[in-house]
Amino acid sequence: MSDPRPIGVFDSGVGGLTVLAEIRDRLPYEHTLYFGDTARVPYGPRDPAEVRWFAFEIVRYLVEQDVKMVVIACNTAAAAALRTLQRSFEVPIIGVVEPGARAAVEETRNRRVGVLATQLTARSAAYRRAVHSLDAGIEVYEQACPEFVPLIEKGIVDGPELESVAAGYLEPLMRRRVDAVVLGCTHYPLISAPINRILGPEVRLISSAGQTALEVGRMLSRRGNLRRPLNVEDEGNATYVCSADPEEFATLGSRFLDEEIVAVTPAAVI
Amino acid sequence: MSDPRPIGVFDSGVGGLTVLAEIRDRLPYEHTLYFGDTARVPYGPRDPAEVRWFAFEIVRYLVEQDVKMVVIACNTAAAAALRTLQRSFEVPIIGVVEPGARAAVEETRNRRVGVLATQLTARSAAYRRAVHSLDAGIEVYEQACPEFVPLIEKGIVDGPELESVAAGYLEPLMRRRVDAVVLGCTHYPLISAPINRILGPEVRLISSAGQTALEVGRMLSRRGNLRRPLNVEDEGNATYVCSADPEEFATLGSRFLDEEIVAVTPAAVI
Repeated sequence: MSDPRPIGVFDSGVGGLTVLAEIRDRLPYEHTLYFGDTARVPYGPRDPAEVRWFAFEIVRYLVEQDVKMVVIACNTAAAAALRTLQRSFEVPIIGVVEPGARAAVEETRNRRVGVLATQLTARSAAYRRAVHSLDAGIEVYEQACPEFVPLIEKGIVDGPELESVAAGYLEPLMRRRVDAVVLGCTHYPLISAPINRILGPEVRLISSAGQTALEVGRMLSRRGNLRRPLNVEDEGNATYVCSADPEEFATLGSRFLDEEIVAVTPAAVI
Repeated sequence: MSDPRPIGVFDSGVGGLTVLAEIRDRLPYEHTLYFGDTARVPYGPRDPAEVRWFAFEIVRYLVEQDVKMVVIACNTAAAAALRTLQRSFEVPIIGVVEPGARAAVEETRNRRVGVLATQLTARSAAYRRAVHSLDAGIEVYEQACPEFVPLIEKGIVDGPELESVAAGYLEPLMRRRVDAVVLGCTHYPLISAPINRILGPEVRLISSAGQTALEVGRMLSRRGNLRRPLNVEDEGNATYVCSADPEEFATLGSRFLDEEIVAVTPAAVI
């Protein structure tokens, strides 16, 4: 059995490309369709109801393109909208929060976990809930980091300015002696080096991206929905769609994905 | 790093030995300490508060024996007590409900899942909650099967009597067109053959035991808590403790575990 339909992946902008990269790396024969809502990025400071509606429109668009599953590669959208979306569509939908939370539960030794996230994700307590559904005895400290995304999108991913901002966010987590920290925003893998330096070698840094890609592979394989290639060279193609300027998406996006972005179509979804 | 402490596993009686068997099969170098609360079995028809207290006493006993983690290999106890126990002890504790629920979410194609369980587990809606924390759009049908455990413990694991009882429990699930059914009690793997026959090849039967053993391995390996053997023959030992007649435990237990049970110590926990 072969299911050639693409995997749909969406994010408010380019951050979700870190998740797409992990999916393409682990499942090279799968077609993917990525949607970046660049016209309305960022979602972090918005109202949850607004984010829910944006997410609904985008999943509807992806379903119209006949995707076999949807990955919400945006912590903010996953935290705000995942449950509503799962109840609204027949296609399976997963987010990035649960896989990241699960990894933290598996990794922490002292059962003290930190989460770095956007304001909306931190306020939603989505990670805390996801961790507690697995281990109710783990202490979860969620830290909103509103300055990270603007800095990263400006290309500032290391150096004294970023370090000073990061130190401010990490200090409360370190004071609470967490030994596992989840990067609860798809932008943050780009600044994992300075974060690691500040936290030190004893604290494990968890990126939801890799964990989510593992879950995608497990679901497709268990359901018999993987695409079977014609031969080993028959790799899956990647299609990119965004809601604003395609060139800007391609330029900014190639920083998040280790390959050049070839075709970007602006969508009339929204 | 090697952590030679045993893995603690407990159940109300012998059913949890199906979980222990999977753990020993996948992690042959681990020492295990199994506690069967045979003096107070079955937990299924009891009050949740009572089950919570029994579970608390037993985990305290296991912690005193210096286990490195606890597996609640009893759906009833996991459903009633897991969260309370996780908040009460420092050692990591996992149940069988969440791994089984996760496998069902990964396997169902039509997003309609059935659960066969004892009365208390079914009433607790623990599987429904665990499934919905992963996919809020999945329909979950929980069926209480009070006659299964007594039949299985009498050695009736197939034949017309068991089939007729099973058909009655399965009919409502089949009418709802579930395509994945969780065996939500550790006794039920012993009757998977007749259940499979009635459900037919299109419905996937999920045993929590294997899924739970996978999760145990993942947690110990990620935390660096596996035991390192001296050589390939240095397999882990298995210790059995029960709260009532040891001989009866050994006789009944060997039906659940594919090896002879050697040492059974009656415990003064309770």
